[in-house]
Parts: sequence; structure tokens; C-alpha cells
Amino acid sequence: MSLPDAEALLAGLAEQMRPHVTPDTALVGLHTGGVWVAQRLHAQLGLTQPPGALDVSFYRDDYAQRGLARDTRSSSLPFDVEGRHLVLVDDVLHTGRTVRAALNELFDYGRPQRVELAVLIDRGGRQLPVAPTYCATRYMPPDGQRVKLAQEDDRLLLRLAPDTE
Amino acid sequence: MSLPDAEALLAGLAEQMRPHVTPDTALVGLHTGGVWVAQRLHAQLGLTQPPGALDVSFYRDDYAQRGLARDTRSSSLPFDVEGRHLVLVDDVLHTGRTVRAALNELFDYGRPQRVELAVLIDRGGRQLPVAPTYCATRYMPPDGQRVKLAQEDDRLLLRLAPDTE
Repeated sequence: MSLPDAEALLAGLAEQMRPHVTPDTALVGLHTGGVWVAQRLHAQLGLTQPPGALDVSFYRDDYAQRGLARDTRSSSLPFDVEGRHLVLVDDVLHTGRTVRAALNELFDYGRPQRVELAVLIDRGGRQLPVAPTYCATRYMPPDGQRVKLAQEDDRLLLRLAPDTE
Repeated sequence: MSLPDAEALLAGLAEQMRPHVTPDTALVGLHTGGVWVAQRLHAQLGLTQPPGALDVSFYRDDYAQRGLARDTRSSSLPFDVEGRHLVLVDDVLHTGRTVRAALNELFDYGRPQRVELAVLIDRGGRQLPVAPTYCATRYMPPDGQRVKLAQEDDRLLLRLAPDTE
């Protein structure tokens, strides 16, 4: 099975979300791929709230094993979380642990009215009872590899990389 | 739509779970209805680990609004959570906030290998990206009411009650 086209997935994801968002809906991208996807969705959906970004490294339950990534980024939510409709955005959904970490970080900022989850790819292998609200496709990478989003000249593309986890 | 028969739902839920559990799988019931369901599933599935119980009142994100229930119960996990396959068990899945709270409480005990979710009823109305792994049925109670599990003479039954939330 060849790698899906990221730009086509993005367009499909935006169409799934369009009937369910209002201008006041806020997107929250998960570093790094999810931030790129959120920026593109924000433009395509014409949302007024600027997208937020979360770096959940410190919140992951396996933080002790993984340690700090060399390029630690920071979180930024340029809107009030309290009572808001939020959509977490990530490139690939796998175990669900990143999503749990993101929810915990979000709830440290306030109590949103509703949090949905939008992903380009669901690669299965869930370890927590998490499910995407919007998902462009399911794709299982070959054994020992993982699928990784890249950005070149403002275009998104998917690549395979060794799965080091 | 008439209320489903809780004993029939229980039997169906056990059949869904049977191929996916091992004797070492541990069930964790959420107070109060989920504890009853977990006890019955434990017997039907012939699991060796005694079921645990969680009371998530203190972990809910709306604790400040709801306050302490009059009958505060305690949590008990009679097994090591670390590295284990756990199944959270509840009677009714609604917003998903209780499940998030339960996951946070579980992870305070250790880092499970995998956590699944089994519910008798999915009543919709999700406010978090949570999904049941095993679900006996979907049922939407009439407006202003909620569905509530009761236990009489060791038999489970469903009732409607005013939705005070």
C-alpha cells in the first residue's frame, strides 16, 4: 500500500470538519506535525481564532523513559480555553497516549466545553480508549517503520521512517 | 424505544470481550454501576485477577461545581497496574469526562500496558475524544432523563431517572 497523499488527506479532513465548526472553534495542533496540519486547516476552514500549539513532552506518561527531545518546543494557546469548543489536531494517531497527555495539558489551562480530535492518519495500535472525531484515512505502515509528516515549500507530505519506539 | 434488558446487555458484552481477554486481564469498575458490571463480567469471563474499583469524584474536572457526593466511596486496585492489560468498566458512557478522570487516577497507580473501555450503554453526547472498546448497545434516553443501572437480588436492571446534570 503506497503512502497516502498528505495534501489530499488534508482537503478531506477539512471537508469532514466544515459542517461541525463555527468561526469561534479553536484548533490546537500537537507538535510538530499537528501544528502544520492545524495551520492549514485554520486557513481552509476560515476560523477566526488563531490556532494554538501544544508540546506534550512533559505530560507524556513515558516521559521518564523518553527524556527530553533535543528540540523542546513550547505550548501556546492564544485564546481562553474555558467553555470553548476545541479540536486537537495531530498528524498520526497511534497509541492514544499523546492525546491523553494533550487533554491533561489543556485542562491545566481551563475547562473546555468540548474537545474533539482530528487526525490525518489513524495507524491503529491503540493503548487507550481514545478515538478520532475526524480522520482522513487509516494507514498501517510496514513493520518497523512509522509514518511521519514533513513540510516542504508549504506543502505537506508523508514519509516513512524507522520506528525507534 | 423501551429500556434494554441489562442482563442481556451484560451477556452480550461478555461475549464481545471473551476473545480479547486473558486470565491476567484485570477489570476496573467505576462506582457505582460499573463496579456491579465488573463483578458480573469477572465471573462470566473466568478471570483470575479480582476486579478493582475506582471512585473518580475527586478526579472529575467539574469537581468544584459538583462537590462531594454524599456517599463518597473509595478506590481499590487489588493488583499491580504497571504493565498490565486493564479494562475500565462502566454502565453508561456519556460525555467521556468520567473516563478521562479514571485514566488519570489509574496512571497515578502505575503505567498500564493497555487500557480498554467496556460499557453496557453508549448514550452519545461525547465532550471528549473517548470511545468504548466494547459496547453492548447504544441507547438515548428521553429528553431530561438519564439511564441508571440498579441491582436487585443480584440481577442488574436499567431505570430512567431525572437528569439533574
